[in-house]
Amino acid sequence: MREVRVALVGLGNVGQGALRILTQNADQIGRKLGFPLRVVCLCSRRVQSIDTPGFTGLKTSDWQEAVRHPEVDIVAELIGGTGVARAVIEEAIAAGKSVATANKELIALDGPEVWAAAARNGVHLAMEASVAGGIPIHTVLREGIAGDRIRAMYGILNGTCNYILTEIEAHGAAFQKVLAEAQRLGYAEADPSADIDGLDARSKLAILAALGFGERVAPADIYTEGIRRISPVDFAYAHQLRHTVRLICSARTADGELLLSVRPALVPQSTILASVQGAYNAIWVRGEFGADTFYYGRGAGADPTGVAVVSDLMRLARDLADEVKPRESPFGFAQLQPYRKVPITRAKSAYYLRFRVQDRPGIIAQLAAVLAAEQISIDAVLQLPIEDWRDLPFVITVEPATEECIRQAVSRMSRLDFLLEPPLAIPMERSL
Amino acid sequence: MREVRVALVGLGNVGQGALRILTQNADQIGRKLGFPLRVVCLCSRRVQSIDTPGFTGLKTSDWQEAVRHPEVDIVAELIGGTGVARAVIEEAIAAGKSVATANKELIALDGPEVWAAAARNGVHLAMEASVAGGIPIHTVLREGIAGDRIRAMYGILNGTCNYILTEIEAHGAAFQKVLAEAQRLGYAEADPSADIDGLDARSKLAILAALGFGERVAPADIYTEGIRRISPVDFAYAHQLRHTVRLICSARTADGELLLSVRPALVPQSTILASVQGAYNAIWVRGEFGADTFYYGRGAGADPTGVAVVSDLMRLARDLADEVKPRESPFGFAQLQPYRKVPITRAKSAYYLRFRVQDRPGIIAQLAAVLAAEQISIDAVLQLPIEDWRDLPFVITVEPATEECIRQAVSRMSRLDFLLEPPLAIPMERSL
Repeated sequence: MREVRVALVGLGNVGQGALRILTQNADQIGRKLGFPLRVVCLCSRRVQSIDTPGFTGLKTSDWQEAVRHPEVDIVAELIGGTGVARAVIEEAIAAGKSVATANKELIALDGPEVWAAAARNGVHLAMEASVAGGIPIHTVLREGIAGDRIRAMYGILNGTCNYILTEIEAHGAAFQKVLAEAQRLGYAEADPSADIDGLDARSKLAILAALGFGERVAPADIYTEGIRRISPVDFAYAHQLRHTVRLICSARTADGELLLSVRPALVPQSTILASVQGAYNAIWVRGEFGADTFYYGRGAGADPTGVAVVSDLMRLARDLADEVKPRESPFGFAQLQPYRKVPITRAKSAYYLRFRVQDRPGIIAQLAAVLAAEQISIDAVLQLPIEDWRDLPFVITVEPATEECIRQAVSRMSRLDFLLEPPLAIPMERSL
Repeated sequence: MREVRVALVGLGNVGQGALRILTQNADQIGRKLGFPLRVVCLCSRRVQSIDTPGFTGLKTSDWQEAVRHPEVDIVAELIGGTGVARAVIEEAIAAGKSVATANKELIALDGPEVWAAAARNGVHLAMEASVAGGIPIHTVLREGIAGDRIRAMYGILNGTCNYILTEIEAHGAAFQKVLAEAQRLGYAEADPSADIDGLDARSKLAILAALGFGERVAPADIYTEGIRRISPVDFAYAHQLRHTVRLICSARTADGELLLSVRPALVPQSTILASVQGAYNAIWVRGEFGADTFYYGRGAGADPTGVAVVSDLMRLARDLADEVKPRESPFGFAQLQPYRKVPITRAKSAYYLRFRVQDRPGIIAQLAAVLAAEQISIDAVLQLPIEDWRDLPFVITVEPATEECIRQAVSRMSRLDFLLEPPLAIPMERSL
């Protein structure tokens, strides 16, 4: 068997991680495959300034040269974004090269088109690194539990948010302070919006929905709410309720319907999802037959994501060596009747409602009257005796109600003049 | 593309689970594959008494007829054990049929020979269901994180033991009482030894060691200790130390050495492994590059294990349809220098030592003298004030020492006449 040859296009964190693994683990990779997997081309705008000891192949800053390099069998697109990366993937496919990509944004937006182009050109595609870096969730859903019919998935898919939330939880520090510290440490971007407003997680959920349900989902169609309003008081109350707060990406089906959301949720402390700390990611999968499985690992980082890229390259190399047909698109196995995507207002759940008020008599009575008018039943009213919270935060939990009713109630409550800010409504995930 | 055709040989729990999934999920399986996967033969000694609505293929109690059936492409061996099952697999391979097996004992003992036979005959082999039923750990190690170099694995691989331990933990009931209840509920066998003495877990660890390290390990060479001596006091003390007790299968490498064991261990409550409750299984994997990943699910059960079998059948069907070469044996990628397997006496760890004594003055002094003589440093001495423990159980924790030193100390202590039973020594896993 001859060797299979790779071009790495993009040498940021992930590219350098993949190169390190391909170099340092070359022996074991070769023995697992039965033939060598060799990097013959490195491409990056700043390739000449990157130290690549022992590398004797082509170093170029021209991605077209890398893609067209006659020795290259597989192109690893590790640039990210939807600009140059798209051109790299399209030209590689057109040139008959197989492609491994770590590109979350592009696959979330245009995955079906990319897979269709690969199928037309008879080339292989792999994208393990595009969701949850170190967790091999693509392989799990596409192969490991392929025989199951997925019912629901619950993910912690943004390491920055989970880091911030668990820091608030551990130290009781305010959101802005923790965010600033995360930025200082490099865990959050200077412009943190993509992370803390849930947009990054939303792209990942769109890809997971394809893998789990065979459905195309536009990221913009997923209800998305970030973590800016979560404060230490919310953890204090959540703990009293034996819950914690996490940014949960959920996708669930029932009766032919598919409901997706990215939003903070109260998660029972007894569930394994609640034990996910720091920048880790995790995915809970509920199958019709296999019941619950759970996957956990680093969501990002040069080496964990590099493992995903290298494992993809090994799979592609094996497929090339075996001259197999390209795999079926993950976007292609939807039910004969595709799932109806239902709006978030149809979601039904118990809710946690947190208020900040100017104290005066009759507050609870007025809030309770609004809930009663929406046919929402109160489960509990909580006020922790903590002296230095001058804005008197307190919490009402309610029995399962639809998001629509909750929104009506929140909207009516927001007009009450004793509220210092609109009520914060967070669903309580009891099905985990 | 024509269909791929399967014989299910063995229709116990797992066989019936696989059949149910292949029937009820046939549509989605077909769309994922791009062609149908069809069961054409069912084989079991009691096949005529099993209800198989809608099944129109061959039902036979003669496994040779099933294996030789000219329409059968893949044989799923779901009998278990090392008797008939071995013959089924050998004859299927000899007849040029690919094989999916859920057979832990056989693969743990003779996996390399079975893989070699498959390679000689150019047939495909899959064995996802042989370890940790519902957790796709084979696929993860063989494909999902194939690019990583595994450093250590820690597993909870026996659901019966984990059920018993977490019941003792939750209710403070004695081991024998919980075991009897587990037997009544069907979670433990009438002869529970294979589970509670760690033998079942040992076979699974031998297979994991092959998948993770490419090493052949004889189950009998793995140091194995069961859970019969774990009592409610151990959980009380473990909790005081912010730990819990689990039966941990561990396999770790360092400096070219491989150390394996199955034994109860104290696990920090802060680690995600400590949150594994009831009959669930879990595997913690530490890779050189990908760092920590964690996998969790049902360890057994008709449908979860059935998912593993069906997912294997899908993989084999794809490989047959693509006419690929058989995969490399997982037993085949050992280092150029195989790992030296080191005896358990070389293991080094902090230890928990629990004593039951007849009270008298000078006990601690005598025990401390024995530890000092072995150069073992005491970390803490604990005695919980619980009145109804008449045998005065108390605990000494010690700083990291080798198993050899601990055994010497335990042996010398056992001769002290105030001890009601030999000391119980449990390692404390601090590296999780």
